Amino acid sequence: MSMKPSIPKGTRDYHPEIVLKRNYIIDIIRDVFTKYGYLEIQTPSFEKRETLSGKYGNEGDRLIFNILNSGEKVRKVDVSALDENKITKFINSISEKALRYDLTVPLARYVSQHQNEIKFPFKRFQIQNVWRADRPQKGRYQEFTQCDADVIGSDSTYLEFEMIQMYSNVFKNLGFEKVQIKVNHREILASICRKIELNDNFLDFVTILDKLDKIGSEKVINELKDKLGLKDKFIPLLNEIFKSNNSSQILSLINKEFIDNDNSKKAFNQLKTLFDLTSNNTIDISFDLTLARGLDYYTGVIYEVASLTNTEIGSIAGGGRYKNLTERFNANNLSGIGISFGLERIYHLMDDNNMFPEEIKSPNDILVINFGDEFIHDISFVVNQLRASRSVLIYPDFVKLSKQFTYADKNKFNYVLIYGKEEAEKNVIKIKNLKTGDENKHKLDDSIKNYKF
Amino acid sequence: MSMKPSIPKGTRDYHPEIVLKRNYIIDIIRDVFTKYGYLEIQTPSFEKRETLSGKYGNEGDRLIFNILNSGEKVRKVDVSALDENKITKFINSISEKALRYDLTVPLARYVSQHQNEIKFPFKRFQIQNVWRADRPQKGRYQEFTQCDADVIGSDSTYLEFEMIQMYSNVFKNLGFEKVQIKVNHREILASICRKIELNDNFLDFVTILDKLDKIGSEKVINELKDKLGLKDKFIPLLNEIFKSNNSSQILSLINKEFIDNDNSKKAFNQLKTLFDLTSNNTIDISFDLTLARGLDYYTGVIYEVASLTNTEIGSIAGGGRYKNLTERFNANNLSGIGISFGLERIYHLMDDNNMFPEEIKSPNDILVINFGDEFIHDISFVVNQLRASRSVLIYPDFVKLSKQFTYADKNKFNYVLIYGKEEAEKNVIKIKNLKTGDENKHKLDDSIKNYKF
Repeated sequence: MSMKPSIPKGTRDYHPEIVLKRNYIIDIIRDVFTKYGYLEIQTPSFEKRETLSGKYGNEGDRLIFNILNSGEKVRKVDVSALDENKITKFINSISEKALRYDLTVPLARYVSQHQNEIKFPFKRFQIQNVWRADRPQKGRYQEFTQCDADVIGSDSTYLEFEMIQMYSNVFKNLGFEKVQIKVNHREILASICRKIELNDNFLDFVTILDKLDKIGSEKVINELKDKLGLKDKFIPLLNEIFKSNNSSQILSLINKEFIDNDNSKKAFNQLKTLFDLTSNNTIDISFDLTLARGLDYYTGVIYEVASLTNTEIGSIAGGGRYKNLTERFNANNLSGIGISFGLERIYHLMDDNNMFPEEIKSPNDILVINFGDEFIHDISFVVNQLRASRSVLIYPDFVKLSKQFTYADKNKFNYVLIYGKEEAEKNVIKIKNLKTGDENKHKLDDSIKNYKF
Repeated sequence: MSMKPSIPKGTRDYHPEIVLKRNYIIDIIRDVFTKYGYLEIQTPSFEKRETLSGKYGNEGDRLIFNILNSGEKVRKVDVSALDENKITKFINSISEKALRYDLTVPLARYVSQHQNEIKFPFKRFQIQNVWRADRPQKGRYQEFTQCDADVIGSDSTYLEFEMIQMYSNVFKNLGFEKVQIKVNHREILASICRKIELNDNFLDFVTILDKLDKIGSEKVINELKDKLGLKDKFIPLLNEIFKSNNSSQILSLINKEFIDNDNSKKAFNQLKTLFDLTSNNTIDISFDLTLARGLDYYTGVIYEVASLTNTEIGSIAGGGRYKNLTERFNANNLSGIGISFGLERIYHLMDDNNMFPEEIKSPNDILVINFGDEFIHDISFVVNQLRASRSVLIYPDFVKLSKQFTYADKNKFNYVLIYGKEEAEKNVIKIKNLKTGDENKHKLDDSIKNYKF
């Protein structure tokens, strides 16, 4: 049997240069998480279906990849369920497990399951793949990597600041000159909503507000009037908010107009502290009322990070504070705060803007030309020493030199190391830089430290 | 809804100390692969079912995890197939994708699919999870990690040697004082089989031979007589093989008795070269005729690495040379050689024998006691400097000191950093070593380089 091989739609092979670049980003994120005292955990790729189902809404549930029960168990298929149009019941009859859809529900399950062993506050990070049965399209894949850090079991506002520090550290270490960290707070949105008497339509209100950047203040106000019945008397106040173009202006407006209960007061104080703490830093953080991501989930501060290099690509990191993480799993409910880095988008931004270091781009370093076993054998101590710090590939076959040099060239090696009959007679090794064409000679017994690369 | 959360049987949560230890091993393996010029690739977690099925035998096929088609596609279920007892046909009707079962078939698919872009010889490594629907039991999981390095498209015997160098390097770097690398060759087994006139029963012959360690030579010979009809005249020769207790003895016996065609001659020369090349090294390699792993797959040299620390745990690495890797996928057939490290077994061996470095065992390094925001703020420049090289967790809440010290204790932090009212007045920072109880004071503006840890 012969078949033309391919991979499922929505999946990717990561070729060597892609793996190197992805690992470069992941290592920097992991390093920052670690330096801030977060510990890495990993959870299984599949969870019980009962753990995942009902956690992501109807739309999310449909996008979960279910795993077919093995062996004879498939015989228990409930066909009548399908006839009755009960798809979930049908799936339940042949599937007990499903692939991880995100890292949040597994975290909630992990914390609930191991809560007696964990000493809270629990700072964990997790960098693993997730799977979603989204319709494959450009830039959207069915398998991708999430990078999350969370603190469970502390309400301290210090963590709101720490998250911003970590955003800043990660992007600085990745070489981003400028990223913008946008901050919002669910309680402030809620108090505005109350003030303009739309609090029965909170989610509709933020959905319309979210369009401000795209459609402008006038159209937003019209939509609020048409769809939610916004009263005319609130329009000047809304316009004042929309006009405020820096964070301190908005904050003082909030302080003046929207502090109507303990929650909004607390929210204001949190934001105040956050801006005070970051004021000394070079971090570009701004208050953005239109930021409304994940409001079904976040209950306090909300973050979003945008690249100023390429504004089209959307947010490259996000996060926020949430309550009730573990309520689905147990009574001892825990809340937390978390951030997430968008590996795929960061990768594409860095790749498009040529931001990866040179050595990451040339995975192939030194190629030893093969002049026969005896010559390879003679320089094996040199190769071993080089391998303490560099990557050395010995061309495995003693074939025509032209073929070996073509191989070096096609695979973009940085250097070739030449030791054949001629060199052996002179007791030297030649090292040729394939980028510059420069050639250096070294005594065979010269210390490797003196080799020029 | 409240439920007691748990994970599927056969899966594991990796807690922080486990992740650190696993990453420690993986980093060392990755480093050695890289230093020898292998490039890392990653393939999707799921492949098309047609890519995987039929590649692992009937038993293997049954252990593949199939993924249920999403959404409305499940309606295409072919129930009649089940009635006709055609389980594969039934599965085909509702599943197009399956989870990776090993890294070899994905490699074959990858090389076949991308053969026009790849410059051969292709040296690749891959460290990814695989999934098998094995019945869960102690030490056997449904999700585990494989670490494979392969060279595709070269027949050079130099690679047989390079693989042994890599085994040796990896285990040395992991801190194993002694591992035994066992080598065998399919062609030598085949020539023995021919010589004693059992060549119609090759696989049965090696299966019985494989029991030599367990049941002894007498019982092996009896079994060969009873089951395969071994003739008495060959018994002295077999006994001579079984008695040979060092590699050079066996090799000269092979040379004398079993070189009967070009293949066995080539095999002998390969082994000879291999033992010559390793003779200068401190590598413990031995020829082991009973080694018969993966003979359905390996066509040349076969490797197995055993730990001499714990012989019960079985092989901790393996590999061999194979032909016809890509024959299922295309006509342009490619052969290769590969090795694989058993991460799970290596982990357990190292853990049981306390072989992980001290810093790996204490993921929690420095805890900053929280005396209130103003104190944290005052020492933030110290914390930032420390974080250049160390992990520093600022206790997020300003709570009772006893609670914070209990946290430090329970989470096994190495150090606590103390800066409260008393210290602020004296302009000092206290650093307490929680393992020894030692306490050091430092001037707040002292360079971090002078801090004692």
